[in-house]
Amino acid sequence: MTSGEIQAGFRTVQDQISNFLSDQDGVGYSEDCWDYAKGTGGGITRVWERASLIEKGGVNFSAIQGASLPASAATQFELPEGTPFLATGVSLVIHPWNPHIPTIHMNVRYFEAGDIWWFGGGVDLTPYYPDRKQVIAFHKGVRGVCEESGEEYPMHKQACDEYFFLKHRDEMRGIGGIFFDHLNTDKAKNLDFCLRLGRAFPELYRPCIEAGRDRAFTPEQREFQLYRRGRYVEFNLVYDRGTLFGLQSQGRTESILMSLPAEAHWKYDWHPKPGTPEAELAEVYLKPCDWANL
Amino acid sequence: MTSGEIQAGFRTVQDQISNFLSDQDGVGYSEDCWDYAKGTGGGITRVWERASLIEKGGVNFSAIQGASLPASAATQFELPEGTPFLATGVSLVIHPWNPHIPTIHMNVRYFEAGDIWWFGGGVDLTPYYPDRKQVIAFHKGVRGVCEESGEEYPMHKQACDEYFFLKHRDEMRGIGGIFFDHLNTDKAKNLDFCLRLGRAFPELYRPCIEAGRDRAFTPEQREFQLYRRGRYVEFNLVYDRGTLFGLQSQGRTESILMSLPAEAHWKYDWHPKPGTPEAELAEVYLKPCDWANL
Repeated sequence: MTSGEIQAGFRTVQDQISNFLSDQDGVGYSEDCWDYAKGTGGGITRVWERASLIEKGGVNFSAIQGASLPASAATQFELPEGTPFLATGVSLVIHPWNPHIPTIHMNVRYFEAGDIWWFGGGVDLTPYYPDRKQVIAFHKGVRGVCEESGEEYPMHKQACDEYFFLKHRDEMRGIGGIFFDHLNTDKAKNLDFCLRLGRAFPELYRPCIEAGRDRAFTPEQREFQLYRRGRYVEFNLVYDRGTLFGLQSQGRTESILMSLPAEAHWKYDWHPKPGTPEAELAEVYLKPCDWANL
Repeated sequence: MTSGEIQAGFRTVQDQISNFLSDQDGVGYSEDCWDYAKGTGGGITRVWERASLIEKGGVNFSAIQGASLPASAATQFELPEGTPFLATGVSLVIHPWNPHIPTIHMNVRYFEAGDIWWFGGGVDLTPYYPDRKQVIAFHKGVRGVCEESGEEYPMHKQACDEYFFLKHRDEMRGIGGIFFDHLNTDKAKNLDFCLRLGRAFPELYRPCIEAGRDRAFTPEQREFQLYRRGRYVEFNLVYDRGTLFGLQSQGRTESILMSLPAEAHWKYDWHPKPGTPEAELAEVYLKPCDWANL
């Protein structure tokens, strides 16, 4: 299997997901094609901004080759500094307007460096006003994709809980999902897992959109959403390996930071009132929990 | 000279600056005293939030002792891992409502680790709609403080241009000022420099407040300010050593992230129209320039 075939598979994932999102929104994406200035290759960035359903979001495809793999990408394999690399993937973050619809992130990626190749990726949900049944259904759906692919859901689920964790806040970014990296057991099988995950996106996210899109929300709920989006910014800029990889490899800044919300608020030492849904978010939902078995 | 005397000097700096800012605002600060959970000591955080002049800002004092100096603090001295440390300092960031008043940051700090001690600090301005004369006057004022203290302005000015640089945006955070670290030539002289810098704060910032506070601004100018505040967030979370030190030393998160604005906006691949003041900001002002000699 060539990296060209993998890229073609990822392009299909981008098309499937961006067509689904355009259908849901009613407004189509804007598309930018770009070249990787520091090497060869480039990408296709598709964005929605102040659209109907989506306040800000995008689905990125990229396939780049560079002279020297950045440190953020080579944490497991002892690759010598300055190893040439190939990286291709699809990455998406969708921030809907309505606080009753969670923000979603999905990523599938493939690397080659020296004689080594590996896949990575995952999907996770960041609700503002979580619905317990929806959270359980999301995790069951993700588990289903893992099982169809012969992948161990519990391992990837735990990796997600550990990865999307804001140490300085002592809380998870959202309610988790799965996260995997350095997957290199069988190239065809690993790719198949990534493509299945991509194809599963509509069935994973559609219930969240349908349940939330017509729900009214108060200015206070909108404000809480914007406050929580500050945490999303904190995670992506302080911890996220993909963001760090992008910035370190001098990728296209606007495509990398497409993941940031349109608007984020910070308030000094603010805490929600005990007993409110806003307090319940961190107390109940932003901690590791075996949702799929509830 | 003991670290207690240095702490006392820094407390005075905090008082002088927070009293000045309360006078300017008309609204007094809120104060929180806190203990350092991971060692001994603690701090005093003073904040303004949705006040009259200040949208969000704070003046922090802290004096902490910990078991192991974080990597972000020991870039110059080859200190063994796990060296106990003492750190004390004052750090402030002020984000006024009015886009015609720049955001300002100042910091003075003192470290002891093993047998080594050093001072660090600086002051820098981040305007949204810069006034050329004001930028020149600010740099001349900062140069004056350096000269009174027998410190080399050009060296500290250049360090500031290099430090407050967003590599992924290829632009400076603001119009610079001075930045110094690992200053350990003469303890009394170095402390005196830090205290002079603190005392100079009112004269450095007052002209900016007075020129901007009664100027009307349009919703478009406010929007540009909020967009630019996104860059402030990017710098502080991706690059700032003080923020990194705070988070790595498991300091008090709310005091560390007090530097973030109340509100920040991101827009995909947005660029100001050529020839506008918004375009002039990055083209003219966010590049190194020897303002004090213009």
